[in-house]
Amino acid sequence: MGPHPAVAAIRLAVRRVLHDLLTDHSRTPEKAAAATAAPEGARAPGRAERPAPLVLVACSGGADSMALASALAFEAPKLGIRAGGVTVDHGLQPGSGLRADEVVLRLRELGLDPVESIAVTVGREGGPEAAARDARYAALDDAALRHGADAILLGHTRDDQAETVLLGLARGSGIRSLSGMAAVSGADGRYRRPFLHLDRQTARKACMVQSLPVWDDPHNADPAYTRSRLRHEGLPALEKALGKGVVEALARTAQLSRDDADALDAWASQAEASVRDAAGQLECAKLYALPPAVRRRILRRAAIEAGAPAGSLFARHIEEVDRLITGWRGQKAINLPGKVVARRQGGRLVIRQG
Amino acid sequence: MGPHPAVAAIRLAVRRVLHDLLTDHSRTPEKAAAATAAPEGARAPGRAERPAPLVLVACSGGADSMALASALAFEAPKLGIRAGGVTVDHGLQPGSGLRADEVVLRLRELGLDPVESIAVTVGREGGPEAAARDARYAALDDAALRHGADAILLGHTRDDQAETVLLGLARGSGIRSLSGMAAVSGADGRYRRPFLHLDRQTARKACMVQSLPVWDDPHNADPAYTRSRLRHEGLPALEKALGKGVVEALARTAQLSRDDADALDAWASQAEASVRDAAGQLECAKLYALPPAVRRRILRRAAIEAGAPAGSLFARHIEEVDRLITGWRGQKAINLPGKVVARRQGGRLVIRQG
Repeated sequence: MGPHPAVAAIRLAVRRVLHDLLTDHSRTPEKAAAATAAPEGARAPGRAERPAPLVLVACSGGADSMALASALAFEAPKLGIRAGGVTVDHGLQPGSGLRADEVVLRLRELGLDPVESIAVTVGREGGPEAAARDARYAALDDAALRHGADAILLGHTRDDQAETVLLGLARGSGIRSLSGMAAVSGADGRYRRPFLHLDRQTARKACMVQSLPVWDDPHNADPAYTRSRLRHEGLPALEKALGKGVVEALARTAQLSRDDADALDAWASQAEASVRDAAGQLECAKLYALPPAVRRRILRRAAIEAGAPAGSLFARHIEEVDRLITGWRGQKAINLPGKVVARRQGGRLVIRQG
Repeated sequence: MGPHPAVAAIRLAVRRVLHDLLTDHSRTPEKAAAATAAPEGARAPGRAERPAPLVLVACSGGADSMALASALAFEAPKLGIRAGGVTVDHGLQPGSGLRADEVVLRLRELGLDPVESIAVTVGREGGPEAAARDARYAALDDAALRHGADAILLGHTRDDQAETVLLGLARGSGIRSLSGMAAVSGADGRYRRPFLHLDRQTARKACMVQSLPVWDDPHNADPAYTRSRLRHEGLPALEKALGKGVVEALARTAQLSRDDADALDAWASQAEASVRDAAGQLECAKLYALPPAVRRRILRRAAIEAGAPAGSLFARHIEEVDRLITGWRGQKAINLPGKVVARRQGGRLVIRQG
């Protein structure tokens, strides 16, 4: 008898990502050639030349990341990969240190090695959720370097992705903010999210049938957090109105939006050179000829380059600058965040600080 | 004392659209020259050469379209525009004929002329909401032609736009379906939506302070309709979770997505020619080199051109065809809706019926 379908699903998701990692890993010229000649044996050459790759799982002790840890522990050895784990103690709740020790214990019981708990200090910048996230990724980056890990797996599910898309939607700042979390991100593609197409229920079920105790973070149910309100009220209401496929539709929207945003960014990069004169100034007539979507991306980049902080630069700022091109009637200079000023001068658009 | 702020807001929104119409109207070469020389007088030449333009309002008797009718009745004469109105009797509720007659009466009281009620027969294709919409627009198109109208104003508000974006999001089919309703649409830009940036509350208030009786369509509160569930449950829950700015953010997302989708469609059109060989076949190697967002748009167009019905062609179909390009391992032919088959043959992608 094979494993429970939920366990099979989490293992398959992890196996795919580990396989990708090994393929990436072997992408030096001679190895790529070997991989092409004999795809089934593509893993072998890597092992002969360097120590076995190490993959860490970032684990909070919750169902998603415990399921991920169990699947990693099961799949990694079969592919000659070392599997370890890290838990981050955010120090935000009483007893969080004990909780972290417990997670360490459980990861060790799964056979992971190395395993460690890292205590971090959460600041206040950008709100509680953003500050906790920043501290967590800094700790994980550091752990990856210290252990020489090839990748860190994160337990974000399709449900997390749907929530992230809705959070982006609420910003109303365009398709980049609808593109959610990437399957591969971070320096050198360090972070991998094997569960991005898997629903939360499957992860939970996999823990249950494997008798893995899981911890429900009280923050996840705390209505003080936007994501928690979205999870427990917003998204269920949306599902009730629109049907059960909403989470999947949001996750698919993320992927499509990401590809679209990438393509448009590439177009804007390429077009930018062609709209600058010999002195590097932006020519209004040439900007005017571009599609609005491309032109606004160039304007946004120019504003950021001039010193406007990306996070404070909203769609309405860019629209106003755009009207210097498309609705010119002698407007005065436009003030942007970061003391950046945009003005039209002799057919050129000048964006600079001060 | 000026008008109530809500009345001022609806009038300004209509004035802007009427002004745009007059400017478009005068865009023959000699008139464009006159408009450039003396923008303030740009309206006058049009009147001397042809009968005064006619603008119709499509009015259900609800608050949004009654507010629109009142603003049109007020603004049009000042610009030398004739203002008329049309109400469509969908025949879906008992007494709908009487209701339509009442709307006709109210539009006449506002001073609109011509005014008419058109009875339509609503079919079943695409579900009740789509069928009613198709019948309505057919009737409006017909009315525009019969009366020689230059435009038909529609009362869709920012709230309607937000709902439309969420409905598109639920399809999960990409940014085109996130782009909501256009401010200008239909043959020759016949349909205009002056209230797309105005909230429903303002329209309602404007009716109240002008003592205009309005009719609340019971369909709008009927939970059998997806849009109604969204309006009364989904969107309020989302606002509760994400904050009051959600409607505005969704409307802005619509505009940004529309511009992005237009730019990518233009790119795909242009790229399509370059990926076909002398015989007009799609070359896999050249498709492979394109950004995924552009490549998938070309594949989608090719499938539709081959006879696949656009409405049945989902993102997952296109992804599967895309894997013939990006993940070629000798797959067999892929069946698409409308008996269209996609296969890879000798480095070419062949998409055709049968």
